[in-house]
Amino acid sequence: MQTDTILGRIDDGLDDSLRRLFDLLRLKSISTDPAFKDECRKAADWMAAQLTEIGVDSSVRPTTGHPMVVGHRKSANPSAPHVLFYGHYDVQPVDPLELWASDPFDPQMVTRDDGSRMIVARGAVDDKGQTMTFVEACRAWITETGDLPISVTVLLEGEEESGSPSLRPFLEANAEELKAEYALVCDTGMWDPDTPAITTMLRGLMGEELEISAAAADLHSGMFGGAAQNPIRVLTRILGGLHDENGRVAVPGFYDGVTELPEEIARQWEALGVTAEKFLAPFGLSKAAGESDRSVIEQIWSRPTCDINGIIGGYTGEGFKTVIAAKARAKVSFRLVGDQDPDRIREAFRAWVTAQVPEDCSVTFHAHGNGRAITLPVDAPAFAKTRSALADEWGRDPVLGGCGGSIPIVGEFRRLLGMDSILVGFGLDDDNMHSPNEKFDLQSFHKGIRSWARIIGSLGGMS
Amino acid sequence: MQTDTILGRIDDGLDDSLRRLFDLLRLKSISTDPAFKDECRKAADWMAAQLTEIGVDSSVRPTTGHPMVVGHRKSANPSAPHVLFYGHYDVQPVDPLELWASDPFDPQMVTRDDGSRMIVARGAVDDKGQTMTFVEACRAWITETGDLPISVTVLLEGEEESGSPSLRPFLEANAEELKAEYALVCDTGMWDPDTPAITTMLRGLMGEELEISAAAADLHSGMFGGAAQNPIRVLTRILGGLHDENGRVAVPGFYDGVTELPEEIARQWEALGVTAEKFLAPFGLSKAAGESDRSVIEQIWSRPTCDINGIIGGYTGEGFKTVIAAKARAKVSFRLVGDQDPDRIREAFRAWVTAQVPEDCSVTFHAHGNGRAITLPVDAPAFAKTRSALADEWGRDPVLGGCGGSIPIVGEFRRLLGMDSILVGFGLDDDNMHSPNEKFDLQSFHKGIRSWARIIGSLGGMS
Repeated sequence: MQTDTILGRIDDGLDDSLRRLFDLLRLKSISTDPAFKDECRKAADWMAAQLTEIGVDSSVRPTTGHPMVVGHRKSANPSAPHVLFYGHYDVQPVDPLELWASDPFDPQMVTRDDGSRMIVARGAVDDKGQTMTFVEACRAWITETGDLPISVTVLLEGEEESGSPSLRPFLEANAEELKAEYALVCDTGMWDPDTPAITTMLRGLMGEELEISAAAADLHSGMFGGAAQNPIRVLTRILGGLHDENGRVAVPGFYDGVTELPEEIARQWEALGVTAEKFLAPFGLSKAAGESDRSVIEQIWSRPTCDINGIIGGYTGEGFKTVIAAKARAKVSFRLVGDQDPDRIREAFRAWVTAQVPEDCSVTFHAHGNGRAITLPVDAPAFAKTRSALADEWGRDPVLGGCGGSIPIVGEFRRLLGMDSILVGFGLDDDNMHSPNEKFDLQSFHKGIRSWARIIGSLGGMS
Repeated sequence: MQTDTILGRIDDGLDDSLRRLFDLLRLKSISTDPAFKDECRKAADWMAAQLTEIGVDSSVRPTTGHPMVVGHRKSANPSAPHVLFYGHYDVQPVDPLELWASDPFDPQMVTRDDGSRMIVARGAVDDKGQTMTFVEACRAWITETGDLPISVTVLLEGEEESGSPSLRPFLEANAEELKAEYALVCDTGMWDPDTPAITTMLRGLMGEELEISAAAADLHSGMFGGAAQNPIRVLTRILGGLHDENGRVAVPGFYDGVTELPEEIARQWEALGVTAEKFLAPFGLSKAAGESDRSVIEQIWSRPTCDINGIIGGYTGEGFKTVIAAKARAKVSFRLVGDQDPDRIREAFRAWVTAQVPEDCSVTFHAHGNGRAITLPVDAPAFAKTRSALADEWGRDPVLGGCGGSIPIVGEFRRLLGMDSILVGFGLDDDNMHSPNEKFDLQSFHKGIRSWARIIGSLGGMS
């Protein structure tokens, strides 16, 4: 089998792959800090040179911020599918530096007591290590066969860790060039160190800020306490009623458009045997706080939720001040699933709040963000091929998981380029992404390259 | 009648009284600002000299802050009652200076369109003007009769506007010297420009700070929203239930010890014809927000209340952050009446909150302040004499009012010197106390002196 020889080449070339990854990890491409602008440019140059070297014709493309790297390689097979691969070369800041066991930009191979090894550096997993799993898989295919069985466009961003300000304009300006049949995104995680995952559901997000006002100015709670409306009292009363006694969101119509899990996925999740105790233990918690009739996994992946993200009013400093504040403010966000309509929910929330505002008080609202949930088409052929390739590599079916948060790139690809994304990644929960001592298990890196080699073959009809 | 001649002397001497008051108002005795330390000392010296001049043997007494002025004068009548008069010579800061129509320390007599006049200056009413109403009344008595019909101890404080840090130690150190049968305090207001008032009920105060904690650190609301406890949700749910649908405080046992108004006072308050619309209009409000079956006056004077004075949790800056905070905090205060026991209410509140804290969350409490309500003995003979003297001067019975806030001096006098206070003052709601363009109506000053002259006579059995 051709795939077997390619996998053998990957195994034999692992040290070279690591050498290249370490070269990339030494570049201090912190995108949020202008002091590292040149290092970001160096990382973009390095990536473009690396891609061009293996035969993906690449260039560094300017934006108003850090540049994009774009590369193309057409397969010799004219009927080969065309995919866009997305990754990012920028990394998070390293503070607090004193908590790192080694220099974050001097990558180390650390061996654990059990003999397993891990790569420790800023960007080891997020997203330099992950990005290189795909690049190294392409290198193995091209070196071994002189070709890729799929046509590839590569898009590497340099501002993912700083809010992707240039992404949308760049996608809009280069839509024709970047468009493909679907995108492969490598920036997510595995289910556990031995179980791969494809992220197939992303919750949407709708944010609201509300401010309750009462008297024209702050009042003395001795003189007016009792007689004057207190906006904090009004706000806590309203927000205190956001959830019913079963943990369901009380806004009328909120659950319109919420869909139940497909049978197969529900069974798969149940088989994972996740308990709230196990899942929440790392954070000092033990009991799922959401809808009482839903498992913890459903609560974070497939059920809509509401959280109060911030609240402020009155005197909050040291000591005490007997004030009745004139205003109180809160920020509330809703995570959405299925076909929930953010606009209708915003309207319903505002109506629900407004109806509870008593005489002498008023409320103003301010919208923050508005994204629908995304459910990726797990039944599409490319998904089926990706699943089976991952199953072949890891010896078990990948978990078709959800993601409680949003991954903006997936929405942008759908909206601006009209294509869905397949999210495959090899990160682990203990990788310390965004924290000191970020690491990437050597097994994740190695089998990640092998996984992509198999997926590329599978998508190209070569296995 | 002797009183008539004394009142005539007051009328004839009004210009001299004003000249003396203006001298005092020119001293910049701002107690909160160390830059005005010498001016505070000058005001104390001025007061002591003034008192000594009229025959009240006075001295300036050091404290760790601004000094006290203490004076004594024994009546020639050995069976005369002995009272302590309290006032303060310090004033509030003057910021914002640009909002003053004239220099705050260059007192002006301003004539209104209707011909009525008012004294405009910082301290005009609070408390230099009020203090001088008593001093000028003593001067008239002594000048006219060579004696006072009551024995007087005068205590003038210089730190009332900066929290009275020296008051308690000074009272403790000089308890024997300062003790009298009762205190006369001149730092409160009239009911309206033509209706005098005696403040007879002061609400107590109990403050609590509570903090709800959940996860060990802030969490991402995308990843954990739904499954993780959110302390703001817990806090708003608990505080949102502090009041029932009738505006009553929901903490069990809270109303234990609450007494109903004496028949006579209830009738008097009802006769005042105060509506919530009228009372709250200056603050942009129109409807009493407290217990639905109580009038606005009851709500602020004779009913216990609860207010949330501050709340904070999560992200409260510009924009949005999808965070689940690890902690959320609030400050809550209770105004107490009758025999409500602050310690028992604190305990009941803590138990009530704790019972509602869900699994995975914890609560900590921090106590702030603890003062019982004070009801002054309106039936005591000295009160009756004060009432009738005020009624004689103003042609109408004084309102026996409450004060929603606490006046610490009254509690200290009771606790440390074992005496009750009679609170008589001549301020008006529109006097701009603590604000730019503070004023004291000339009528309030003039009839205030006359009122004290009558009260002194009445208490001394001379009328």
